Parts: sequence; C-alpha cells; structure tokens
Amino acid sequence: MTELKLIFPELGSPSSNYLHTPLLTDTYELTMMYAYWKRGMHEKKSAFEAFFRKCPFKGEYAVFAGLDTVLQFLNAFRFSESDIAYLRKVMPLAEDAFFDYLSQIDASCLKVTAMKEGTLCYPQEPLIRIEGPLAVAQVVETPILTIIGYATLVCTNARRMRQAAGPDKTLMEFGLRRAQGPDGGMSASIYAVMGGFDTTSNTLAGKEFDIPVSGTHAHSFVMSFKNLDEVKSLKIRSKDGSKTVDFFPLVMEKREMLKKHGISQDSANESELAAFISYASSFPNSFCALVDTYDTLRSGVVNFLSVAFALKSLGWEYGSIRLDSGDLAYLSRTARATFARLAKEFEDPSIERIQIVASNDLNEDTLISLNLQGHEINVFGIGTNLTTCQKQPSLGDVYKLVEISDEPRMKLSNDIGKTTIPSKKIVYRLYSETGTPILDLMVRDLDGHPDQVIPKVGQRILCRHPFEETKRCFVVPHRVEQLNSVVWEGKQLLHERRKASEIKGFVEEQCKIARPDTLRSMNPTPYKVSLDDKLYQFMHQLYQDNLPIAEFK
Amino acid sequence: MTELKLIFPELGSPSSNYLHTPLLTDTYELTMMYAYWKRGMHEKKSAFEAFFRKCPFKGEYAVFAGLDTVLQFLNAFRFSESDIAYLRKVMPLAEDAFFDYLSQIDASCLKVTAMKEGTLCYPQEPLIRIEGPLAVAQVVETPILTIIGYATLVCTNARRMRQAAGPDKTLMEFGLRRAQGPDGGMSASIYAVMGGFDTTSNTLAGKEFDIPVSGTHAHSFVMSFKNLDEVKSLKIRSKDGSKTVDFFPLVMEKREMLKKHGISQDSANESELAAFISYASSFPNSFCALVDTYDTLRSGVVNFLSVAFALKSLGWEYGSIRLDSGDLAYLSRTARATFARLAKEFEDPSIERIQIVASNDLNEDTLISLNLQGHEINVFGIGTNLTTCQKQPSLGDVYKLVEISDEPRMKLSNDIGKTTIPSKKIVYRLYSETGTPILDLMVRDLDGHPDQVIPKVGQRILCRHPFEETKRCFVVPHRVEQLNSVVWEGKQLLHERRKASEIKGFVEEQCKIARPDTLRSMNPTPYKVSLDDKLYQFMHQLYQDNLPIAEFK
Repeated sequence: MTELKLIFPELGSPSSNYLHTPLLTDTYELTMMYAYWKRGMHEKKSAFEAFFRKCPFKGEYAVFAGLDTVLQFLNAFRFSESDIAYLRKVMPLAEDAFFDYLSQIDASCLKVTAMKEGTLCYPQEPLIRIEGPLAVAQVVETPILTIIGYATLVCTNARRMRQAAGPDKTLMEFGLRRAQGPDGGMSASIYAVMGGFDTTSNTLAGKEFDIPVSGTHAHSFVMSFKNLDEVKSLKIRSKDGSKTVDFFPLVMEKREMLKKHGISQDSANESELAAFISYASSFPNSFCALVDTYDTLRSGVVNFLSVAFALKSLGWEYGSIRLDSGDLAYLSRTARATFARLAKEFEDPSIERIQIVASNDLNEDTLISLNLQGHEINVFGIGTNLTTCQKQPSLGDVYKLVEISDEPRMKLSNDIGKTTIPSKKIVYRLYSETGTPILDLMVRDLDGHPDQVIPKVGQRILCRHPFEETKRCFVVPHRVEQLNSVVWEGKQLLHERRKASEIKGFVEEQCKIARPDTLRSMNPTPYKVSLDDKLYQFMHQLYQDNLPIAEFK
Repeated sequence: MTELKLIFPELGSPSSNYLHTPLLTDTYELTMMYAYWKRGMHEKKSAFEAFFRKCPFKGEYAVFAGLDTVLQFLNAFRFSESDIAYLRKVMPLAEDAFFDYLSQIDASCLKVTAMKEGTLCYPQEPLIRIEGPLAVAQVVETPILTIIGYATLVCTNARRMRQAAGPDKTLMEFGLRRAQGPDGGMSASIYAVMGGFDTTSNTLAGKEFDIPVSGTHAHSFVMSFKNLDEVKSLKIRSKDGSKTVDFFPLVMEKREMLKKHGISQDSANESELAAFISYASSFPNSFCALVDTYDTLRSGVVNFLSVAFALKSLGWEYGSIRLDSGDLAYLSRTARATFARLAKEFEDPSIERIQIVASNDLNEDTLISLNLQGHEINVFGIGTNLTTCQKQPSLGDVYKLVEISDEPRMKLSNDIGKTTIPSKKIVYRLYSETGTPILDLMVRDLDGHPDQVIPKVGQRILCRHPFEETKRCFVVPHRVEQLNSVVWEGKQLLHERRKASEIKGFVEEQCKIARPDTLRSMNPTPYKVSLDDKLYQFMHQLYQDNLPIAEFK
C-alpha cells in the first residue's frame, strides 16, 4: 500500500489536486475581497465559523469529515500569475495594487481551529473556525464549505448505513460510477470508509488512501462466455502448490456429485458455468460468483456450487455468491438453506457459512427492511444511495462571521433559529459517570475572553438551549472533553496524518458510547447542544440590541 | 479568457486532472481484465455501448454531455509504474506477464463512436460506443459511466430549469459549495452552462472553461460594517472619468431626495447602507445589492435606492438588487412597483427596468410556481438543486456488451425492458417536413453489417418500438440525421474542442425545434425511439433463442 505522506508540504506548494487553488471559490468572495481591500478593511481581524443548522437525513447526529483536505487546500493556497491575469479580466476596474496584494498572500496569515476528523457533531457547533485578515478568511469560505460539506454528508450517510446493517456485516462501497465525477467518487470512497464501510470498489481510492478494495466480476463477464468449450483446457493449482490439475473435469465431477445430492442441473446455464470456472481459475483465493445473470437459484447458485466444491477439493475456500437483483431476503434465505443442507450432508459446517453478498440499489431504509424480513446476507455492496446521499444530497453547511476586530457579530433573522451564535466558541462534551456524553456545551473561547469559565469535572454547570428560554439544565460532568483545537497557525500543526481506518475506529468508539436513541434511524432523540449562561445572556442581549423593531402605523 | 487547447496531447500524456488514470475504476473491472487475460480472451474484439434506460427527473429527454472529458481521460490512459506496483499487491496471485501486459497498453487500441456533446438523447440510445480488445474496452466502463453520468444529469437539469424559467431570464449557477467536492463543482459549472445557464459563480470554472462568472457580495459583507463612519471618506469616479467625488455626501443627498418621494428611511439600517456604499464604490459598473440582511423592503431596497441614484448621477447604471429569502414573488412585485413609481416621478424609464435577482433554494418546481404566482424577477441564481440534482441525483447510466468477436450479445432479463438491444447500433433522427424530429431510429451499424439499409429522405420506413410488438409506424423522413460518429480511432479525431457556449447554442437550437410536449415539465409525451424492422426481428429472435424457459413440475 502507498505510504501516507506524513511530512507536510511548504506553504504555497502545489497540491496533487489541481483544483486546489484560491480561484476555486465563488466570484463574490473575490469581489468582496476587493471591496474590503479598497476600503482598507482587508486586514481587519476576523473570525468565521463553519457549521450546519440541521442534521442530515432526518437524523440527530453527523460525523465531521474533510479536515485533512481543507488543510491540503490551505497548504496550496496561492494565486498564480495566470490566476491573477484571469482576475484582471473579471474585474477590469480594480486597481493594480490589489493584484499586487493578491500575488503576495498565502494561508500563513490564518489560524484554524477545528474538531478532529470523525467527531460526532451536532447543529450549531463550530466544525472549523478560520481566523485571520478579513479578506483571506472570507475568500476561503466556498472551498471550505465545498470540501467539508460533502465529506461530512457522505461520512454520516455511511455511518447510518453501518448502524442499520449492524456491526457484524461487511459493507462495500460501490458508488464510483454514480458520483459527481471522479473527485466526487474519490471523496465518497474515503469518507464512506471513515463512516464505517470496510472496502471500496474504487481502485484509485484504494491506492491513494490506503483503504481496502474489493470487486469480482460483472454481468458482462458472464455474458462474454458462450459455452463450456471455452474453459475446457484451464489448469488450476492446489492451494498448497503441490499439484496443478485440469479444472474443467474436476468441476464436472463435482457437478455430478451435487446432482446426486439433489442439486438439479436442468436449468443451469453452461455459459455461466464457463464464466465461473474461468474466474475461479484466475482468483481461486477470492472466488465470488455473481449468480443472477440467468436465474439466481436454478442456475447461478447451482453453477457456483460445482465450482466451489472443486475449489475446496484443492484446498481453497468455497468462495461466495453475489445477489444483484430480485428479492434479496428470500433469495439469501433460500441459498442459505441449501448451503445448510449440504453442510449437513457433507459434514462440513463451513459450507453453511459461505458468504452471501447483496447489492442492487440498497440504502438505509432497505437495510432496515431486510432486517425486519429476516435475511442471510453477510456483505452489502452499496453504491448510488451512498454516494449521492439520495435522501438529502447536500449538508447545507454555512460559514458565518462571528467576530470582527475582536467584536462579536451575529447574523440576525426574524426566525431566531436562523440567527448565528456570536463570538468565537469552544465546544465541550460533558460525560456522565457511565461514560455517556450528556450534552455539548459551547462557551466563548478563552482567547479574547480570558475571564471565560470553562467547564470542569465535578462542577455544577447551568446549560441552556441556545434559542429556547425554557430549556435549561444543570450538569455535573464526570469527564469534560474539549472538541476543538488549533490545527493550523500560519502552517499546519498536526504532525501526523491519520489513516482512514484509524478515523473509522474513532467514529466507532464514539458510536458505542453515544446514547442509542440519538443514533437510531427512526425518530431519534435530539442530542442537547447548549450554551453556558454567560454566552446565552450575551447572545440574547446582542439580539435584542440589534434586531430592528418593526413599526406598524 | 484562457485559450482552449485545440491541439490534443499525445496518447498516454498526463491529463491536468490527476484522477485521469486507469485505476479510476471499479476493482472488478481489473479482476475481470485478469480473468480475460488468463483465459487468452483479452484481445477478443468487443463492443460496449453506454446508455440509460429512463430519462431523469420524470422527463422524456436528456442532454448528452461529458464526451470531451471522456476523450481527455482516454488520452491519459496508461498504467504508471506505481499503479502496477499497487495492483500487484491487490492481486497477489496474478502472474507477472499480466503486469507486463498492463504496462504496455493505452487507448490506441480503441475506437469510440459517440453522439455530439449536447445532443438531445433518449432511453436505450447508445451515447458512447467503445470498440476494442475485450480487456481494455471493459476496464474503461466505470470511468466512462462516472464522467458522462453526472455531466448528462446536470446538463439535463440545467436545461429543464432553463425551460421552466423561459428564454428571457438570466440564469446563474451558484452551486460550488453544495457539490461533491471541487471536481463535482467544476463539472456542475460547465455542464450547467451547456444546458442553458448564463454564468457561474465558480471562478476557477470561469477561468478553465472560458465561461462567464458572476457574483456580488454575501450577508457577511453587510455584517462586516458597523456604521456610516466607516465609509465617509470614500471617493468615486464618474463613469466618463471626468471627475472624482466624495461618495458619501452624494448618497446622503439622494437619500434626502428619495425621502421626499415617499421612500421612508425610518427602518433603513445604516450599517447596511455603509456596506452598499463601500461595494458600489468598488464596483460602480456592476453594483448588485443583497437586500435581505435586515429587512428587504424597509431597509435593503431603500438603501439600495440611495446608492443607485448616486451612481446614476455619476453616469453609471443603477445596478440591481438580490433577494435571498422570503416570498420572492411578492417581494419582487413590490420592489418592481416602487421602481415603476419612481420611474414615473423621475421620468426615467430605466428605473423601472432595474434588474431583480433572486436566489434561495430554487429548483425547477419553484421556477414554475413563481411563474404561476406572477413575479418580477429577471435573474435567478440556483445552487443546491442544480448541482445535487435533488430530484434524481444519479442518471443510472449503464455500459453493456453488445458484440463480441463480431457476434451480437444481449443481456437477458425476464423483464424485457431491462434487456439490452444487441449489436452495434447507429441512431438516426428522422425529421418531418416542418423540421420537427418525428422519432429516432436505431439500426445496426454498417460496419460489420454492410447489407444494412440506412434510412433515406423520402423513403418509407417501418419503425418499431423496441419492446412492444403493437407499437409501430411508417415514417417518410424529410431529413435524416445520423447522431453517432467516430470520434476516436486509435487517437482523437475531432480537430477542434467546442466551447461550452457553442454547445449551449446547439442545445438551444434542438429545443427550439423539438416538440414542446416532449420537453414540458409536467407529464411530458415520450419521444419515440424505435428500431428498424430488421433489428427488431433480429433482437426478438435472439431473445427467444436464449432466454431459458422455466419448468414447473
């Protein structure tokens, strides 16, 4: 596997992704930048926070992802000469000195505070905070939202599918062909694994991100065979390497034997059998037969068994089958019953354990429905619905100014739920005696507010709902965890890039201790995100002071 | 603007997109490749066709897109040393000679036949056909589906929005932050323009694809101003360059004047006014005020007018307003009424024509609903729903083997609608006397079937529904257009890359002559896709010959 790059590039050095340039942003970010510059406001100290207002998929949690890519983007952040030449054309009235300014900036003026990739996160919580001169902190809005929005969405989607499938199933990501182009597919692969998937079908993602790949064959492979003549001369090696034999007669022998055990060969398509023989002779260690090209039970499973028994007689495993159409619950149960019967007759319990893989337009709801129906599937391959996040194809994350020149700012709205919570904030997760998170508490960052009281173990804290006056509670935490930390200060501070599998483990750990009613698919209970009383009072005072009162005459 | 590269790179030379590598494919494509190679089948002559079975968005048409990117991908198609090293780890049992084979191949063994980018296309029609040795033609399945799937989907979505908005509106693509990462955003931008959008907010897409960009400012810009003191010293130049004046007193003067014309300033937020003054002084030629930060009608529009009138007195245009929340139909009508009243009072009809831009979660349905309510919006900015294709986030395009060793293949299914139409096909569009397309006719490609009769002007042709025996008709075409042509034969054959704006024009021309009932949003009439009688008979014979007949005992 490729080694992860643990040493970070110099600031302004190109990313492997040619799209990592400051021009990857909405044009209004650049026009605002110019307006700030022209007014001499571009260096004003500012702080923006990225967050979402509602959890995706009608759920009550999300899994934060995309931080590493954001840092790669910041590392590569520099306007090239051709970028500037282009901007001169877009903004013909802008002054030359502005373009000189652009040519000099990079992300060394920024400070980034963020949650760890893989953190379970909730509405209103700052996922990433960017501090720095107004113009630069503003212009990175679009790329940051682009990068973390989809990453968080697909990672959350994958996690929900993992919750629905249960911990003992294998989940394979199959979505490359349904993604928004190559990069959408790459993101889907890595963030699906972080969320709880085991493998991807995307080979390049496997190479680049060091995640396991899997794949067998398609219907076209089966269709490319015409009859058994095409595979009559194939040889196969036994697993221990002691002998090489003709595979075809061996399969035929097993076929006859299975017939005697009640496995009818009448409807077994011979071109399909030829395809399985060919595939198994190439991949005796990972034979997985796609069994639904002609008729799943009467042909596919029957042909699979002939080949599987032949493989087994050479010391290999039986392999597995893949169902890609039809009633997956029924087909898997019927196939399993056949395997169980043969296991008994041949006195080999491993026959009963032959893996059944299922694919075909699966999503969270079908996983839940399959559980209710009862099924015998071990492995799920999920593509379209994972990658496109059909239920909700965008997170709707936002990036809001929370301080300027050290003064708090809030976006006002007549709908208080759309108001932003002012000031730079730190999120603490407060845990109960049993180790379960009770709630998250946002307080103003000590930086700039040194008098801020931070929550401590054993101390009683008044926690308030950000918007609803009546919702409040006292918490005495048994453990206090600070969720955000500085990850960039002029340059990247993290010293090690975490592997996708590590982040996946981190997500799993959190899901194990989280309250199940928050994670469940149907009508989950909201997790409490609260403010300390100080921030609550401060915010509501600012709201009252600033929201204009309509006057009716 | 950047020049489009009209000269094509050498085969195997790297693409600007680092994801353009043969590993950008499902692992099963590579394992199948090995199985073919091992069986000596990898060089078998084969033909695959990519198509979709159902038009997206409950519509009855799609706009084919993505061809140019496919050709870029093929140009860069070559396994690097590190790709091969990685594959050795993924397929530990594969023989060395296979990897030698991989290291030698590129796309020079392929022939590609495709529709022109921007062609209106329909179910079952081959969008792209790949011919070549089985192993290579198979392995490009996933990247081709990935590239054309989203391109076609978003281009079609954009076209539907254009149809809904009407030809006289300006459409701006705003979706970068809601895309599946950077590349999803880039694809959304270019294919939205091809489908009928006028501009994008994505600056990098503007640079790379030579498409117009647009953008003004965000709420954060308005929020970054505190009061009018911040803009008191701003200067502005008159349009003719004859003078530079203090902008603030000029705006205040217009403010007083507007007050006398019944424009109440009582609720006009002064920090918002400061933001508008600042923005207009930076972009006097493209002032667009986002008017909903505080109160659209009582503050935003009022402040806009003060600044617009000041600009106008210096020879600039009034500029425009952007509505980003609330009841867009009502707000636009009310703002227009104010503009109309002022136009009368100031005897300046251009005041009434001030452009009103609207954004905020628009989609095809809201465009149609706005039309029904009556609105005064000139420009729509559409992001999330355009980019994510919320209504249907994947095209579901497929890539099927249609010939091997010059013999036709079809995927059988008990559901005949899921059967693939065998053989390499050419699609002809047959036109009526008035220039309207009557139907599309698929016939077997002359290549390999030299006796195939191709449709000719004035000749009566029997056209048959591919699957339904009872549906058939005679057509005497007044014009016959062949839709697919060879675009790659060992190397790229097209000699000029078409600009997005050209393709956009091509799409528009086709929509003008298409039957409106096929294009409409609600319950559209299906467009006829048919086979000539020869292909029909051939296909149904093959179906009967090959589909196993279930036996019930």
